[in-house]
Amino acid sequence: MVRIPKSHPRYWSLLYREKIIESMEEGITAKAGLIAHGRGEAFDYLIGERTIEPAERAMKVAVAKLLLAEYPVISVNGNVAALVPRETVELAKAVNAKLEVNLFYRTEERVRKIAALLKEHGAGEVLGLNPTKKIPGLESERGKVDENGIWKADVVLVPLEDGDRTEALVRMGKFVITVDLNPLSRSARMAHVTIVDNIVRAYPRMIELAREMRDYDRKELEKIVKEYDNERTLSDVLRHIRDRLTRLAEEGIWRRERLVT
Amino acid sequence: MVRIPKSHPRYWSLLYREKIIESMEEGITAKAGLIAHGRGEAFDYLIGERTIEPAERAMKVAVAKLLLAEYPVISVNGNVAALVPRETVELAKAVNAKLEVNLFYRTEERVRKIAALLKEHGAGEVLGLNPTKKIPGLESERGKVDENGIWKADVVLVPLEDGDRTEALVRMGKFVITVDLNPLSRSARMAHVTIVDNIVRAYPRMIELAREMRDYDRKELEKIVKEYDNERTLSDVLRHIRDRLTRLAEEGIWRRERLVT
Repeated sequence: MVRIPKSHPRYWSLLYREKIIESMEEGITAKAGLIAHGRGEAFDYLIGERTIEPAERAMKVAVAKLLLAEYPVISVNGNVAALVPRETVELAKAVNAKLEVNLFYRTEERVRKIAALLKEHGAGEVLGLNPTKKIPGLESERGKVDENGIWKADVVLVPLEDGDRTEALVRMGKFVITVDLNPLSRSARMAHVTIVDNIVRAYPRMIELAREMRDYDRKELEKIVKEYDNERTLSDVLRHIRDRLTRLAEEGIWRRERLVT
Repeated sequence: MVRIPKSHPRYWSLLYREKIIESMEEGITAKAGLIAHGRGEAFDYLIGERTIEPAERAMKVAVAKLLLAEYPVISVNGNVAALVPRETVELAKAVNAKLEVNLFYRTEERVRKIAALLKEHGAGEVLGLNPTKKIPGLESERGKVDENGIWKADVVLVPLEDGDRTEALVRMGKFVITVDLNPLSRSARMAHVTIVDNIVRAYPRMIELAREMRDYDRKELEKIVKEYDNERTLSDVLRHIRDRLTRLAEEGIWRRERLVT
């Protein structure tokens, strides 16, 4: 792994970039996962590389819904495993959810490697190794799910997910939560709760929230979910980016003149 | 290579994504180049996947400056070689510039492969195989340049370039032109002329412009360069993205409600 000086202004972004590359070399992340990571970097840059209020709001609702769920399942793909393996396991424990490895570019080897990685980080059961069910409307490889996992779930957390699959899960009647840095993506638009944040910031915060909120009574949790409006959240994210671009365009972000004079 | 139906609304984006993956497998593009490509995809999406007016304006100035140059050099890296090998050679011919392979993640093997690829596409001389000079202020591997190429150049075109390197070239007194889809990147801000466009659209257009403009007299070309303001171009790009986001947010991009009801 390339060493990045901690003093670098974008240390975290570069560190996770290296993590994704390393995970591809280990056979955990798909090649297309690197490109997807780059898209995420671009949107994170536009957001300002921090958790904004609409994301905090969506996280609170997501955690409430996971705590209220009868059978919550958290999906894990190659990019998620590369970036937040430990946090994924901790979050599942904090909300008492099942873990299922679910890959867009599915190979048995990648599924096994990701399951092993999650176990190294303390996971008990990991589903998705023998998926016998199929999400209707998706072609066979991409629709495979575990009978005791996503198939059976009432609430699913599918971070960094493909739009077709998010849509298919909504059609199945699942309550769908996603984490996606692109507020315009189909996943972002299709999900019931969309957390527009970098998963490396979102998951640690969701774990904190889960530990805090699991003492709330059901009424309180239900109220949080009931009052939520995902369209408004997404509009607020777009407004945040728009205002940030306006400021940058007007304040002048240009350093060359200062450099050469 | 995965086959993409031509009818797909984002056919070109998906085609070039596959090209980049293929080039990595061939040892032409670096792994980090895939992530960089993803960042570019996201910004291209925000721009609207078309050449906007501020990019056309910057291209005209870039071509004028290349035609006026005493010793213009066009730099080629792994992503450029993957996306526009033929166009790179044609553009160099159209403005009478040298070609230099210049890599951020330099290995002799990658340099040789890229040089061979350019020759397959009709390049005569390709520089960068034996770089004996070093750009001041960069660590050794990343600063290597050819004595008869970038070292000697008065005008350099360094597309999809790293910010540190762009800055170092400006410090050396070169006139720096870049192609970068991210109007906020350090390269974009440091260069004298920044073409915020996808290189797969920009290079063909620049070739057209070069063929048209090489009959202009020097006075006319000088006037085009003199009247140009790169900061304004970048602000105009940011404003374009901002307005596009506003439209997308207001027109209602939300389809879930329509889907489930």
